[in-house]
Amino acid sequence: MGKVITGGTMSLDGFIAGPGDSGFDLLFQWYGNGDVEVVGASPNVPPLRLSRASADLMAEEHGGIGALVVGRHLYDMTDAWGGMHPMGVPVVVLTHRVPEERPNFVFVDEGIEAAVAKAKELAGGKDVVVNGGQMARQALEAGLLDEVGVELVPVLLGGGTPLFADLGIAPVQFEGPVRVVEGTGVTHLRYRVRRSGDGAPA
Amino acid sequence: MGKVITGGTMSLDGFIAGPGDSGFDLLFQWYGNGDVEVVGASPNVPPLRLSRASADLMAEEHGGIGALVVGRHLYDMTDAWGGMHPMGVPVVVLTHRVPEERPNFVFVDEGIEAAVAKAKELAGGKDVVVNGGQMARQALEAGLLDEVGVELVPVLLGGGTPLFADLGIAPVQFEGPVRVVEGTGVTHLRYRVRRSGDGAPA
Repeated sequence: MGKVITGGTMSLDGFIAGPGDSGFDLLFQWYGNGDVEVVGASPNVPPLRLSRASADLMAEEHGGIGALVVGRHLYDMTDAWGGMHPMGVPVVVLTHRVPEERPNFVFVDEGIEAAVAKAKELAGGKDVVVNGGQMARQALEAGLLDEVGVELVPVLLGGGTPLFADLGIAPVQFEGPVRVVEGTGVTHLRYRVRRSGDGAPA
Repeated sequence: MGKVITGGTMSLDGFIAGPGDSGFDLLFQWYGNGDVEVVGASPNVPPLRLSRASADLMAEEHGGIGALVVGRHLYDMTDAWGGMHPMGVPVVVLTHRVPEERPNFVFVDEGIEAAVAKAKELAGGKDVVVNGGQMARQALEAGLLDEVGVELVPVLLGGGTPLFADLGIAPVQFEGPVRVVEGTGVTHLRYRVRRSGDGAPA
């Protein structure tokens, strides 16, 4: 059975977007500061140029991913990635306003549990990625997450959108990092979520 | 000439204290989860029990430190560490209300530049540590910092006091991490501050 994971590129002071949705140029410098070209499946997203370390990690991890869950905000903001997510896998969109059917996307309006269940079905045993801070928070609160990945970049944004904004169940302890990979201008950290069945402190 | 450095133990969501000064038990688990006893100079602070990796790093770094700058809040909260800071070096306290003289402490009321200058004088060529989030922020804003250390712990506090709260000069880019050391339940990250003379982007 695949894992349910989330991740995000985060500033050293804890933000996945700066004030007023600023700072993406600084957060995502690591998408373009390397020598390894990485071409995704989206017609709208230009190739990345990653460091070797980041490219190897992404290749390994993306190979295990079978489906995504995203929120309506991300779906709209990216214009549905031009019709296909860069990872080339089906995307479940959690939304209160279900639009017309379209290939590669499935719309769910029954909450995060139903969205993750649908994505697991589509993933066929591979991993499910839950993306966007709000979706990640909902999945964590619902006890659905297995792993959290943080791509930590050496910039202070001074404010903005936290990775798990408005978390209703803090404090939350993770295990790890179970993996640390140093890219160029980014530190890839992987944590395991303690589940209630683990016998770990809550 | 020694460096001016700051550091703090920070949650994965960017807080050095949780809401209402909570969460210290979670933030500082790494002070007590190892086998290496580390005895400090303060009569009030019990020995730490660190992992080997954390203990080795602290021994190396603390050996280079000649003086500290702290704010009045930290000085009061710790009751002046019982008369001697755990690192066993002189402490410059930045305060608007200068108390009576006492050994091992120097009180400065002329701002962060004067406090750091006094600490450099006392450090005799060794490093100066600036502690407390507010002091660290002021030193960063004044262009006085050379390095930032973050002891990143795998917990979400959901709110509280950010490492560099109310930063007036964001965004700020650091270089690095120039060093990553994995302890037990803590990732020690070291960053270099880009100075205006470096020719780096502001």
